Amino acid sequence: MPGPVKLAVIPGDGIGPEVVAEAVKVLDAVTAASGTVFEKTWFSLGATRFLETGDVLTAEDLASISAHDAILLGAVGGVPGDPRLKDANIERGLLLGLRFALDHYVNLRPTRVYPGVPSPLADAGDVDFVVVREGTEGPYVGNGGAIRRGTPHEVANEVSVNTAFGVERVVRFAFAQAAQRRNKLTLVHKTNVLTFAGGMWQRIVNDVAAEFPTVTVDYLHVDAATIFLVTDPARFDVIVTDNLFGDILTDLAGAISGGIGLAASGNINPDGAFPSMFEPVHGSAPDIAGQQKADPTAAILSVALLLEHLGLAEESAAVTTAVTADIALRDSRVRSTSEIGDAIARAIGA
Amino acid sequence: MPGPVKLAVIPGDGIGPEVVAEAVKVLDAVTAASGTVFEKTWFSLGATRFLETGDVLTAEDLASISAHDAILLGAVGGVPGDPRLKDANIERGLLLGLRFALDHYVNLRPTRVYPGVPSPLADAGDVDFVVVREGTEGPYVGNGGAIRRGTPHEVANEVSVNTAFGVERVVRFAFAQAAQRRNKLTLVHKTNVLTFAGGMWQRIVNDVAAEFPTVTVDYLHVDAATIFLVTDPARFDVIVTDNLFGDILTDLAGAISGGIGLAASGNINPDGAFPSMFEPVHGSAPDIAGQQKADPTAAILSVALLLEHLGLAEESAAVTTAVTADIALRDSRVRSTSEIGDAIARAIGA
Ligand SMILES: CC(C)[C@H](C(=O)O)[C@@H](O)C(=O)O
Ligand SMILES: CC(C)[C@H](C(=O)O)[C@@H](O)C(=O)O
Repeated sequence: MPGPVKLAVIPGDGIGPEVVAEAVKVLDAVTAASGTVFEKTWFSLGATRFLETGDVLTAEDLASISAHDAILLGAVGGVPGDPRLKDANIERGLLLGLRFALDHYVNLRPTRVYPGVPSPLADAGDVDFVVVREGTEGPYVGNGGAIRRGTPHEVANEVSVNTAFGVERVVRFAFAQAAQRRNKLTLVHKTNVLTFAGGMWQRIVNDVAAEFPTVTVDYLHVDAATIFLVTDPARFDVIVTDNLFGDILTDLAGAISGGIGLAASGNINPDGAFPSMFEPVHGSAPDIAGQQKADPTAAILSVALLLEHLGLAEESAAVTTAVTADIALRDSRVRSTSEIGDAIARAIGA
Repeated sequence: MPGPVKLAVIPGDGIGPEVVAEAVKVLDAVTAASGTVFEKTWFSLGATRFLETGDVLTAEDLASISAHDAILLGAVGGVPGDPRLKDANIERGLLLGLRFALDHYVNLRPTRVYPGVPSPLADAGDVDFVVVREGTEGPYVGNGGAIRRGTPHEVANEVSVNTAFGVERVVRFAFAQAAQRRNKLTLVHKTNVLTFAGGMWQRIVNDVAAEFPTVTVDYLHVDAATIFLVTDPARFDVIVTDNLFGDILTDLAGAISGGIGLAASGNINPDGAFPSMFEPVHGSAPDIAGQQKADPTAAILSVALLLEHLGLAEESAAVTTAVTADIALRDSRVRSTSEIGDAIARAIGA
C-alpha cells in the first residue's frame, strides 16, 4: 500500500475505549514488525460526546471520517435508561448512521470455535462459518412511523425496504466468499411469511447461483436456522441473510462459539467508495466499563479483519495466529483487559 | 363443562396425521377416565387437500371450524420445492389464515427441560419459562408489496403493523401469566432499531406494569435474548414479544430444551370469541412422513394445553404427568410414533 494508511479510530463509550486501546496496541505491534505505517485520527463520538455537545454525528464528523482508509470502532451506547439519553438513540444515529452513510452493505461476521474455548454447547463440533449480513436495507432503514402516539389508538409501523440492487450485491459477495471457502451457501430468511422480501431474496440467490457453479446452495427459515446453530453449527459455511436476521443470528453465533467476547465484525463497502469499519460485535457494557474487565479479543480480531480488508494478509494472519495461541492457553485465571492485549502484542513481537 | 366438547381436528400434512393420531389416543384415554365427552370433527386441510381440490381454507371450512370449542392441529405444509405448491403458500393461507381469522392474539409456547432429556447445552440448568408471542400483528400481517418484480430494479417491502390495542391485550395476558408463575416478565424487542414499534411495546409494558406490582419487568434486545437462551435460559419466567421475534425465540427455546419434538403451543383467543387452536411447534417434516419416526410428544403436550384452556385442569395434569414419566424413562431405544402414544395413553389409564 503506497503511503501511510489513514485510520479513523472511534473508541466510543463504556468498554469501547479499553478494548480499542488493546486493539491499537496489537496493531502497532504488528505494523512495527512489518513496516506498514498507520496514521491514526481519534474521534470522540458516542454518548459521552453527546452529553458534552449534544451532537451524535455531524456532517463534519462524517466528512472527516470518510477521508480515511478504514475505521476501527470500539462500542457505542450510554447507560441504559439514562434519562439524558432518552431521545438520543446513539446506536441509530451513530452506528447505523455510519453504516448507512458509508454504504457498508456487507456486514461480515466470522464465527469459529477456537481450540480451548469452552462453548455453552455440549458438543459444538468443528465450527467455522461466516455470516454475510446485509447492512443497508431491510427493517433497519428507519422507515417507520406512528400515529396517535401514546394513546390507546396508537398504530406503529415499521417498513422493511429491500431492493434487488441491494440484495444482489451482498448475495454476490457471499457467493464469492463461499467459493473461497467450503463452497456452501445458506440463505436464511422467512420466505413463507415475508413473501415479498423473501421471494426476492430467494429469486436473486437462484439467479446469482448460476455464476458460481461450485457453490451448493440451501435455504433455511430463520427460526429453523437458530435450531441448527445450537444442534449442528458445523453444518454452516457461509450464511447470507438480511439485516435483522443477521443481527440475531450473529449474536447467537457469538454465544455458541464461546462468547461475544471473541466475535469480530467488519462493516464493509466492497466497492471501496467509502472506508470500511471494523468493530467487535459486543456492545459498550457500561456496567463493567473502566474496570479492566472487558475481553479485548473481539476488538483485536476486528483489527485482523481490518488488515485483511486492506490487503495486508500477512499482518492479518500474524494477529490471528497470536490470538489463537493466546486463546489456547487461557485458563480459569482472570486477566485484565490490558494484560490480554499485552500478551497478544508480545506474541506478535516475538 | 355442560354437554360434549366440540373439537375440530386438523391432522394436516406430512407427520401431522401420525402425531395427531397419538394425541387423540391420549385425549381419549384421559377423557375415558374422567368422563368428559369430546365430539370430534375431522377436517381435511393442508397441502394434500390443496392438491386435490385447489382449496386452502374456504369460507365454509372457516365457518365450520369456528363453530367448535377448540382445535387440535398437527402440522401443515407440503414437500419443499414441490412445483405444484409453488403459488399456494399453505402456511400463510391455512395456518396464519386460522390464527388471524380466529383472532389468536396469544401464541403461548411453554419451554421446560424435562428430567432425563438431553439438551444440546452443556448445562441448561432448571429451565421453565413460557413465551407469550403476539399472534395477529407485526411483520406477519402480510402487508407488503413489490414493484418491478423480477427485474434488477425490484423493490420489495414488508410492513410490520402494530397497534396499541393489539399489544396491550397480549401484554396484559403475559403479566397475568407471570403473576401466576415466578413474577418475572421479560420484554424482548429491538427498540434501538425498530424505534416506532419498539417504543410502543416498551411504553405499553411500562403502563400495564402498574397493574401488576408483584411482577418484576426487564427488557432485552432480541439479539441479546438469543445469547441468554443458550448461556442462562433458567433466567427466564415469562417472555412477551412480537410475532416474528416470538417465532424465532420459540424454535431456539425448543432446541435448547431437548428438541422441537417436545415443544407444544396454543394459539389462544383469551376472550373466547373464537375457538383456540393447539399444535406442536414443529412442522410437517415431509421427509419422514408415514414412517412412524415422528415424536408425537409435542402434539400430546398440545392436548394438555388444550385441556387446561378448556378448564379441564385435572385431565391436563394427568396428560402432563404421564408425558413427564414417559420422558424420564426414555433411553437410546428408538420407539415408533404409535409406541410412544401407546405408552403415554397406557400410563394415563393406569
Ligand atoms: C447496536 C445495534 C444497533 C447493532 C445492530 O442491531 O446492528 C448491534 O446489535 C450489532 O449487531 O452491531
Ligand atoms: C409455518 C410458519 C408460518 C409458522 C410461523 O412462522 O409462525 C411456524 O414457524 C410456527 O412457529 O408456528
